[in-house]
Amino acid sequence: MDKKKAPYSLNSKKVADATRELLHKRGVHLTEIAELVMLLQKKYYPTLTMEECIENVDKVLMKREVQNAVLTGIQLDILAEQGALLPPLQDMIENDEGLYGVDEILAFSIVNVYGSIGFTNYGYVDKLKPGVLERLNNKSLGPIHTFLDDIVGAIAASASSRIAHRKQAEREQELGEESAPNTTR
Amino acid sequence: MDKKKAPYSLNSKKVADATRELLHKRGVHLTEIAELVMLLQKKYYPTLTMEECIENVDKVLMKREVQNAVLTGIQLDILAEQGALLPPLQDMIENDEGLYGVDEILAFSIVNVYGSIGFTNYGYVDKLKPGVLERLNNKSLGPIHTFLDDIVGAIAASASSRIAHRKQAEREQELGEESAPNTTR
Amino acid sequence: MDKKKAPYSLNSKKVADATRELLHKRGVHLTEIAELVMLLQKKYYPTLTMEECIENVDKVLMKREVQNAVLTGIQLDILAEQGALLPPLQDMIENDEGLYGVDEILAFSIVNVYGSIGFTNYGYVDKLKPGVLERLNNKSLGPIHTFLDDIVGAIAASASSRIAHRKQAEREQELGEESAPNTTR
Amino acid sequence: MDKKKAPYSLNSKKVADATRELLHKRGVHLTEIAELVMLLQKKYYPTLTMEECIENVDKVLMKREVQNAVLTGIQLDILAEQGALLPPLQDMIENDEGLYGVDEILAFSIVNVYGSIGFTNYGYVDKLKPGVLERLNNKSLGPIHTFLDDIVGAIAASASSRIAHRKQAEREQELGEESAPNTTR
Repeated sequence: MDKKKAPYSLNSKKVADATRELLHKRGVHLTEIAELVMLLQKKYYPTLTMEECIENVDKVLMKREVQNAVLTGIQLDILAEQGALLPPLQDMIENDEGLYGVDEILAFSIVNVYGSIGFTNYGYVDKLKPGVLERLNNKSLGPIHTFLDDIVGAIAASASSRIAHRKQAEREQELGEESAPNTTR
Repeated sequence: MDKKKAPYSLNSKKVADATRELLHKRGVHLTEIAELVMLLQKKYYPTLTMEECIENVDKVLMKREVQNAVLTGIQLDILAEQGALLPPLQDMIENDEGLYGVDEILAFSIVNVYGSIGFTNYGYVDKLKPGVLERLNNKSLGPIHTFLDDIVGAIAASASSRIAHRKQAEREQELGEESAPNTTR
Repeated sequence: MDKKKAPYSLNSKKVADATRELLHKRGVHLTEIAELVMLLQKKYYPTLTMEECIENVDKVLMKREVQNAVLTGIQLDILAEQGALLPPLQDMIENDEGLYGVDEILAFSIVNVYGSIGFTNYGYVDKLKPGVLERLNNKSLGPIHTFLDDIVGAIAASASSRIAHRKQAEREQELGEESAPNTTR
Repeated sequence: MDKKKAPYSLNSKKVADATRELLHKRGVHLTEIAELVMLLQKKYYPTLTMEECIENVDKVLMKREVQNAVLTGIQLDILAEQGALLPPLQDMIENDEGLYGVDEILAFSIVNVYGSIGFTNYGYVDKLKPGVLERLNNKSLGPIHTFLDDIVGAIAASASSRIAHRKQAEREQELGEESAPNTTR
């Protein structure tokens, strides 16, 4: 009787906390993601601060779809590191197989939440691998980051989209226009 | 000189207003979309009110991606009605060609904003065509709604996803759990 | 030295074979997926045979993206059954949490390969859970099929799209029209 | 009576032909798209020829989803040039508004047909605008190519994915492996 499991009930805070912890455990700091955002956006918003970039990364990480993708992707990376997956999935994830695209699919589920304007930024950083992405993508370092590097790029692209939406709202307010409520998020 | 156009600057309020006006002009009332939401969600939330459904439809319509899809889709419907498109695009949209899937693509750009949990609800109403969707899909009535019926279904599916996220947040608050900030939108 | 691993090289046949084996091991027969296809398509093609449905399911399973999604999804189901995932991911997959949508995302990566016309069919069977989907979705039976039921619905929807494309090609050939090469697949 | 329209029946060849004609009329040559493919792929396949690139672009253009997206996108560009759209859609397309993402959405419906491995290539060329994309994206030249530049990038990314799938099949055949049928397309 006392062994009876409590009935399942989603605890959103635990999901959110686990997301941040896992990113941290896998060696990714929010400031590193924010640096990618700065790289992508400083051209368009010269006065953009690192503080704003961090804040926007932080807000992206509050979305459930983002949390689901981060938890699932990192889980698969960890299991591949442990050799715990069925071949040939083990092989494909361990070797970041070019024809295995589930990592890109999870990344896109992150980008999509902030709309299609983030597609380009995601593809750009995923190809060039600047900053933290270079380290994550370095196959010689040991840990498997087949999913994580795409996920980090997607979070940066999403934060960039979020900034684009918000900067537009600020601009319109400065112009004294009656603003459309809630077009940013 | 005085004819010189003012430099372009996006006015979000105009985009938002045009979205609602176009839906209205094409004969779709927000309450009709809210009825689809009620149909999809009353099973899960027996105390859900029409007021809540309307409010959630309203919030979905505040998202820019949703507005972009609505404006573009209805525009193509109107141009097809006027016979203003190049053949064979004219033919395909006029006849709601089964192998033409751009209407579904625009619908999905709406659903995506609220995450993948809306995919199923969209497909379901798009297949069964309940309520307002039956009327929009009735080819004998004259107007062309190749895009609009998919768009209306997508708005209803998105509002349903939004409700699912918010109801979970409410439930957790009632349980006295420390809530995760901003997981709803 | 003799322990040295052979350099990684993708073996497509192994990936394809593993996909079919895993579906079989998890209790899904291709004829059951074909029955979903028949259910979705007989209305449009009254002369459609089960043989054709099976053949189209078979062709869908030859696509790499489909194989990647099947392998990844079933792997996560199996790991959840073994309790081998990190909480709270374990909890969400074990309980088919409504706000966890990665299963739908993988399903969509399958449907997408055959274009947007499959979206509706996927949503429809995923909501109504006919045939094999009812069994897979029955939580009281023991095995965890959080991913598999969505994947099976997606394969059926994809096979339906494939049939729609091919039937159109056949119709045009019968009309003696010069056919467009390779619009089916 | 004699004015009676023939009943609608999709003619796939006309759709395919119209797609190529429209691309040509809007100033895009298949060799220019093939050059983007070469740029994206020569690093991975040093012996890749322009002939192969052209052939793969050609095959991508045979897919119906690709044709639907090309026809719809170019149609919207043309209508924007003519000033024939409703404000504020006219304004947004005419000015390639950053927060209008329907062009990216259509582009993605093209990339998706060849799977998620093309996402990155699309984003990369869309950001860097090499070759023909620079010309299409040059706002000072007159014509409006808000949709076309994204579409051309997406066709190049899709052809790149197609090449990746086929090269893998070739490699496995050379290794004397029993090949998996039809994993390429």
